[in-house]
Amino acid sequence: MEIEILVVTHGRIAEELINTLKIIMGPAPALDFFPVRKDLPAEQIKKDYKRLTGTILQKKALLILTDLLGGTPTNISMPLLEKDNVEIITGVNLPMLIKAVHKRKSVKNVKKLAEILETAGKKSVLNCRDYIDRY
Amino acid sequence: MEIEILVVTHGRIAEELINTLKIIMGPAPALDFFPVRKDLPAEQIKKDYKRLTGTILQKKALLILTDLLGGTPTNISMPLLEKDNVEIITGVNLPMLIKAVHKRKSVKNVKKLAEILETAGKKSVLNCRDYIDRY
Repeated sequence: MEIEILVVTHGRIAEELINTLKIIMGPAPALDFFPVRKDLPAEQIKKDYKRLTGTILQKKALLILTDLLGGTPTNISMPLLEKDNVEIITGVNLPMLIKAVHKRKSVKNVKKLAEILETAGKKSVLNCRDYIDRY
Repeated sequence: MEIEILVVTHGRIAEELINTLKIIMGPAPALDFFPVRKDLPAEQIKKDYKRLTGTILQKKALLILTDLLGGTPTNISMPLLEKDNVEIITGVNLPMLIKAVHKRKSVKNVKKLAEILETAGKKSVLNCRDYIDRY
């Protein structure tokens, strides 16, 4: 089953991560974002999000990348974990997103892809002084 | 010595991370961003960045948070590690930025602050299914 990647964050963080990804990697299909806008009522956001994810899940598995544990983007995603073909990784950053788009070409199982991204995301956070001291 | 936090990324990622931080935490002093714009020549970017960081370093220590190891925002920051009062953490995400602004209130040493953020950044990347299974 094809895996859709959906980046869900406060405001325009998700959109800007994807803009940069496309500059670096070129066009990426089955990659979308959902902005949680502070000017919209919570009920409207939940309704829009349910509609979007429902449409995706008719045909695809879904990997959701969110910004912050405990934040609205993660909270509205959590109920989707009742489904077997949805996984959520929180703490999204640019290297995690690049890895997600790259690894999805070979890893077709969404649970396995999520495991890879958790590890890759953690590894991508580096103290650059320690890094250059190694060489 | 006061610590300035500078978020340096491709395009508008840094600006959007800071916009969201301010919605969550309120106004944050000594926090700025530098966008690496693809429409500007590399020499112009380096010159602007050198001027900005030079001004900051006249009075403050500097903690730089960048998006991606090997990307231009990190590459233009690396030479600043020649100075003792500069540290760089790459792989910036929203929880890392929130932790940086919060911890800076009590941690006044930039090296110590960088160590805390590397750990916090790694911990903030989570597989949400594993997380809910723990409870």
